Amino acid sequence: MRYPNGKIYRASPTQGAAAKARATRFGKRGMRLEEMLNASNEWYRLKQQAVIHKKPTPIQVVGVDYPARSKARITEAYYRQSSTTDYNGVYQGHYLDFEAKQTKQKTRFPLSNFHAHQIEHMAACVKQGGICFAIILFSLHDEAYLYPFEALIEDWEAFSRGGSASIPYERIKSQQLPIAFGVAPQLDYLKAVDRYIHLLNKNKGSERCE
Amino acid sequence: MRYPNGKIYRASPTQGAAAKARATRFGKRGMRLEEMLNASNEWYRLKQQAVIHKKPTPIQVVGVDYPARSKARITEAYYRQSSTTDYNGVYQGHYLDFEAKQTKQKTRFPLSNFHAHQIEHMAACVKQGGICFAIILFSLHDEAYLYPFEALIEDWEAFSRGGSASIPYERIKSQQLPIAFGVAPQLDYLKAVDRYIHLLNKNKGSERCE
Repeated sequence: MRYPNGKIYRASPTQGAAAKARATRFGKRGMRLEEMLNASNEWYRLKQQAVIHKKPTPIQVVGVDYPARSKARITEAYYRQSSTTDYNGVYQGHYLDFEAKQTKQKTRFPLSNFHAHQIEHMAACVKQGGICFAIILFSLHDEAYLYPFEALIEDWEAFSRGGSASIPYERIKSQQLPIAFGVAPQLDYLKAVDRYIHLLNKNKGSERCE
Repeated sequence: MRYPNGKIYRASPTQGAAAKARATRFGKRGMRLEEMLNASNEWYRLKQQAVIHKKPTPIQVVGVDYPARSKARITEAYYRQSSTTDYNGVYQGHYLDFEAKQTKQKTRFPLSNFHAHQIEHMAACVKQGGICFAIILFSLHDEAYLYPFEALIEDWEAFSRGGSASIPYERIKSQQLPIAFGVAPQLDYLKAVDRYIHLLNKNKGSERCE
């Protein structure tokens, strides 16, 4: 089996229950959510299930050297804050756009993990018919959840009016959009997206066709 | 009028015919296609017509300094080739994904402007229901065109079989998807996207609803 880039796909050495335990330990050892999502997205692309990429980190380049006979070498640059979310792409005709965050908190997820422009970006995408959400990993619980934009914007607006600066863990869990850990994909978040789209359509009380 | 980021929108100093002439001269002076598209996308976002961004250029960071009391300073880094196209986003429920290129050629557009992985990326996105295309600016003609993925992949495959390494200008023009120059937006490519979507739906002979 080959990735579209021609690299040979190397299956994980373990399967089944052992693999699940391994995936769980990865979570416990603090394997970064970003790495899990990048591997999942690569899997989804390989299986032609979705085309979703992490956007490159925006970098402000200040100085560049052009050494003879070698490629441009950036000598001074700075990380910039992204004006959008980290991930977007297309899945079965849907535009997906999401931010992924992990926390060591057990009972709550601090809203300070989001920036105002990310919320505004997601609101603008939803208005265009996009599917927006956060993926939240509670590393000490070893649990990941899809958290719908509709819930997030409620929390955000309540916070702007002086409300809680955190989303309670129980509220995130109560959306009933857990994300399963696995080997390939490591985080099978598209299953949660399916359920989320199903809920959105049910709430609209009509087909999604415009 | 304010951008979502709070910055005040500054209207162009000229309007109407004078502005059109100005926009045309910008083209003649080689104003970069990227700048025109970035300004157009900012306009579309402001008017809530679409949410489309240029992806940041991927950069491989090799060395970083953390000077006391100041932000991380990248001291060695290299540009990397993107594995996708330059632009994507959401427009009226559609996932849009495109590459923008300009040429000083008058009669043809060289296919060497595209990389295989960009074509593969667009093919994968089309398979997921995305709308993919190239925006091609002939700077000496002062003309810009939307060039549908369906036509591009034909050219690309013919080229792989030993065919022409260029797309004839007349073939690009014959798609009848010209893009108008203006002030705001500088390149009103969404109008061409509308026509393209209309053609796609007509060719399917059915509604786009799945």
